[in-house]
Amino acid sequence: MKVTIVGAGAVGASCAEYIAIKNFASEVVLVDIKEDYAEGKAMDLMQTASLLGFDTKITGATNDYSKTAGSDIAVITSGIPRKPGMTREELIGINADIVKSVASSLIEQSPDVTIIVVSNPMDTMTYLVHKTTNLPKNRIIGMGGALDSARFKYRISEALDCPASDVEGMVIGGHSDTGMVPLTRLATRNSVPVSAFLSEERINQISEDTKVGGATLTKMLGTSAWYAPGAAVSSLVQAIANDQKKMFPCSALLEGEYGLNDLCIGVPVILGKNGIEEIVELELDEAEKAKLKESSEGVSKTNGLLDLKK
Amino acid sequence: MKVTIVGAGAVGASCAEYIAIKNFASEVVLVDIKEDYAEGKAMDLMQTASLLGFDTKITGATNDYSKTAGSDIAVITSGIPRKPGMTREELIGINADIVKSVASSLIEQSPDVTIIVVSNPMDTMTYLVHKTTNLPKNRIIGMGGALDSARFKYRISEALDCPASDVEGMVIGGHSDTGMVPLTRLATRNSVPVSAFLSEERINQISEDTKVGGATLTKMLGTSAWYAPGAAVSSLVQAIANDQKKMFPCSALLEGEYGLNDLCIGVPVILGKNGIEEIVELELDEAEKAKLKESSEGVSKTNGLLDLKK
Amino acid sequence: MKVTIVGAGAVGASCAEYIAIKNFASEVVLVDIKEDYAEGKAMDLMQTASLLGFDTKITGATNDYSKTAGSDIAVITSGIPRKPGMTREELIGINADIVKSVASSLIEQSPDVTIIVVSNPMDTMTYLVHKTTNLPKNRIIGMGGALDSARFKYRISEALDCPASDVEGMVIGGHSDTGMVPLTRLATRNSVPVSAFLSEERINQISEDTKVGGATLTKMLGTSAWYAPGAAVSSLVQAIANDQKKMFPCSALLEGEYGLNDLCIGVPVILGKNGIEEIVELELDEAEKAKLKESSEGVSKTNGLLDLKK
Amino acid sequence: MKVTIVGAGAVGASCAEYIAIKNFASEVVLVDIKEDYAEGKAMDLMQTASLLGFDTKITGATNDYSKTAGSDIAVITSGIPRKPGMTREELIGINADIVKSVASSLIEQSPDVTIIVVSNPMDTMTYLVHKTTNLPKNRIIGMGGALDSARFKYRISEALDCPASDVEGMVIGGHSDTGMVPLTRLATRNSVPVSAFLSEERINQISEDTKVGGATLTKMLGTSAWYAPGAAVSSLVQAIANDQKKMFPCSALLEGEYGLNDLCIGVPVILGKNGIEEIVELELDEAEKAKLKESSEGVSKTNGLLDLKK
Repeated sequence: MKVTIVGAGAVGASCAEYIAIKNFASEVVLVDIKEDYAEGKAMDLMQTASLLGFDTKITGATNDYSKTAGSDIAVITSGIPRKPGMTREELIGINADIVKSVASSLIEQSPDVTIIVVSNPMDTMTYLVHKTTNLPKNRIIGMGGALDSARFKYRISEALDCPASDVEGMVIGGHSDTGMVPLTRLATRNSVPVSAFLSEERINQISEDTKVGGATLTKMLGTSAWYAPGAAVSSLVQAIANDQKKMFPCSALLEGEYGLNDLCIGVPVILGKNGIEEIVELELDEAEKAKLKESSEGVSKTNGLLDLKK
Repeated sequence: MKVTIVGAGAVGASCAEYIAIKNFASEVVLVDIKEDYAEGKAMDLMQTASLLGFDTKITGATNDYSKTAGSDIAVITSGIPRKPGMTREELIGINADIVKSVASSLIEQSPDVTIIVVSNPMDTMTYLVHKTTNLPKNRIIGMGGALDSARFKYRISEALDCPASDVEGMVIGGHSDTGMVPLTRLATRNSVPVSAFLSEERINQISEDTKVGGATLTKMLGTSAWYAPGAAVSSLVQAIANDQKKMFPCSALLEGEYGLNDLCIGVPVILGKNGIEEIVELELDEAEKAKLKESSEGVSKTNGLLDLKK
Repeated sequence: MKVTIVGAGAVGASCAEYIAIKNFASEVVLVDIKEDYAEGKAMDLMQTASLLGFDTKITGATNDYSKTAGSDIAVITSGIPRKPGMTREELIGINADIVKSVASSLIEQSPDVTIIVVSNPMDTMTYLVHKTTNLPKNRIIGMGGALDSARFKYRISEALDCPASDVEGMVIGGHSDTGMVPLTRLATRNSVPVSAFLSEERINQISEDTKVGGATLTKMLGTSAWYAPGAAVSSLVQAIANDQKKMFPCSALLEGEYGLNDLCIGVPVILGKNGIEEIVELELDEAEKAKLKESSEGVSKTNGLLDLKK
Repeated sequence: MKVTIVGAGAVGASCAEYIAIKNFASEVVLVDIKEDYAEGKAMDLMQTASLLGFDTKITGATNDYSKTAGSDIAVITSGIPRKPGMTREELIGINADIVKSVASSLIEQSPDVTIIVVSNPMDTMTYLVHKTTNLPKNRIIGMGGALDSARFKYRISEALDCPASDVEGMVIGGHSDTGMVPLTRLATRNSVPVSAFLSEERINQISEDTKVGGATLTKMLGTSAWYAPGAAVSSLVQAIANDQKKMFPCSALLEGEYGLNDLCIGVPVILGKNGIEEIVELELDEAEKAKLKESSEGVSKTNGLLDLKK
């Protein structure tokens, strides 16, 4: 099992780190455009192997995709953040060029790869990979819901003063402050609906805190967060690598599911060796349906900013 | 088991991360002087719990040591890097003030704490804690040799193209480019001396690469490394917390051992619930003795820059 | 953290094994009455340490409780199975004598110990320890619901063809074929009620299969099962050792909770450093209440077979 | 990654258990001739998944090899122990028939499988698989040295009162009381030769204790041990599955290495995706050479009891 991570920034390196720590892959290749940067991160990470007890080999490569040849799974974290004076269209244009080029380079070296997209705006970048490559649709997955759900579970565990391992919950919809739909109705503590322990008001607060989870951290840290994004990616990668048939909310290409078409948005999927093996259609209530609809409109609007004719 | 980490920068946060992942502590408190910063790191890390499967609780505190009360073990990572135009004396003066103040605040809240010093210059800062607190000497430990040894093992595994788990080796001496003494004579691959597999020249190269291990990464990354330092700390903390009686090279106060006195320098020690339970005196050959002597002189010289009368 | 396991049979040894593998305890002492038996199990287990990567020390003792001195947590797995021609009263009498004597020996060496009872009939043996020792009630815990819940989750995961990590569910009530109350209404797959995926009939089948889970394995294996009982114990022990505040259904002394009094029966509790830190009172529906009532009557009847005046 | 274990007795089930716990395989199939027995073990093990946190799927099969189709690695633990009145030749004849038939059934379903032989007499059974199948020699591996080395390390750690993770050491030669050659000269504690800490007499005692390690446990337990054998197998399987290039002493077909020919005996090998990727020829001293020679004669003599013309 060989995994490539493109982008050796904080998020990309965390992806490599947690995949290595879980010790199921033979090799992780980190790729970055910055000279020696991926190699440096790989070296620092490899120096933890004797201390953390893993045997996965992590290597770095400066923009050399030949080293990624034969990857089973690849993760794209590349992209730039929005800079002052940059319009949203300009940002999307720049990141779209990066993601398209990275995806193409990956597929050239590993025609049977499964791609996980992390670059932002994530749902739109996932859609772009669908539109600009020939990979089957089950082999293109957007990472967002797994992270948002982890943040949702964290907020619940915080409110209950219990460990996150006692909490279940999912966030569907677009991977943005306004797009996320935390399914508070379903959230549980050791199988018991959280409404047994928390007031409606508190639950609504959790929902709101979850939606601004990324922004909250950016404010506190002065930069966007990376541990949980990396951990979320590692879980998706292991689910595919080990054919776990595990359910995660991921950005998947919808073709009629949930009444939606021709976009990628967060819905529960079953991950296994074939990537997305099933899109799970939950029975949503009217309010949830309305929120997902609204969320999908936001995603479609952003997709509209893509220039797919290039 | 409650552990406090002072300094929520990259190294401090990595300490918290790996301690949590190893899942043996009930609580890790991250402290930083920067408003909301430790809280942000703690939050990002806690959002990985449901994905990585740990139940340790990580919390953050902005310069509020009351939250560290009752800590069994505390790690000091605070300090500033040398800035342009700053003399070595000035740097040491500033960091000494920080470390002294942090140690005092920690001990005030947790009189029975065991302190692990990571701040640089590490051997000197460890010595400072010995000189300026009333903690018994077994409860003050400098982290350096565990990291340097991990880097040494990495370099050997790289040369042998084998996993680090097959390699053993130790680096003693001062925690600096000129102070480290990699014990190449003893290094093994699955118990076989590495000289069975590598030329003397290659082994010497490994030794040199190990000594500049930190500097190499700083050059590649544009900042100093953090994964392996954090992982090394987590191993020391677990060895103490779980009373493992495990051997690590650590900076210990010497009182005659290895013919040295009144300084802290990296030597093999046994870590258990009482901190440093034994200093292991290896029989070194003449060359190694000479190098350790020279290394100790460098450390003593740096110690001389401390103003202990303040 | 020192843990004692009394009884080095298959279940007791599995307890020691999983506690060691989770690597949070410093020492596990296995005690058995059979000469050299606990020592043999401890030795075989210790020979896995270099292969599985744990540093917990496991030792064995032949009926020598002095070696258990200072234990934080102790697990009682001792007892005999029912033999042909033996009445239920006779069996209970024999096991009660064993459990009482073991508990007394443990407390003599470790006055502040928390005791987890595994010996059968488990709810009654837990009650016996409450009645015959002076330990505070929060420090006596019966292991049953955690095992039954693990079997319930297994049956659900089997029906859904998904990993158990995606399933939540609890079994409350007495730890016996007729006493268990699987809370099917609450069971979830990744927070979604299982009724979204399975027919009522299938869910009822899961409930029935869960209740006879132990008997089914005994029939298949020709002896009672041990892996899952050992794993369940290890989770309870870690929750207490690491002060996790995690929820498990455990046999707790009820004093009015759920309308029940003066018996131990499986209900959700919060486990932390003080043992049972809270009994969680779920709002049950009428059918569940009736089943729990009936289950409690069975447990009380068995308790009536105890001779508490001895 | 699919792994088959043939024989669901204590050793076979432990193999499945530790492979699952290490969480790198998608599926483990346990096969046994006893009706429902492998299924029962698989079920008990699967009921630990939610408690131990693994997602590997374990299934059982009663003598139905179709369920093993497509296995990447298979482990043969089948065979009977010597019974009273049975000659050594009779025992070998019976086990040879079993192992030959199992190997043939495995290869029929999984032509590219790598086989690990555990059945006793192990070196001879491994040789038999080489002689009676068409698998390339790198794909047939005898498990013995990894177990014997784990027991050697345990005995050293016991003598040093240190954790096994600090100890390295290898046992080569035949997998029997008289055949084992513990390489005491090379054994280390954290890279330091153990002779720095232990007397020659104590080291010799360790060597003797190691050689009778299995017999000692059989006497204490009343049956042969299983935890460490299972753990050793799991390490070999993971090294191959994850292409770790890790060194273990294993029974390999020698064709001139160590001056030996046409037999399988324990020597250090590098395990990776191709099974045995290299046989490592250590420079032994005269005494070690003599012992290995003698050991090989014992193995050859046992091989001579095989009827390879059947």
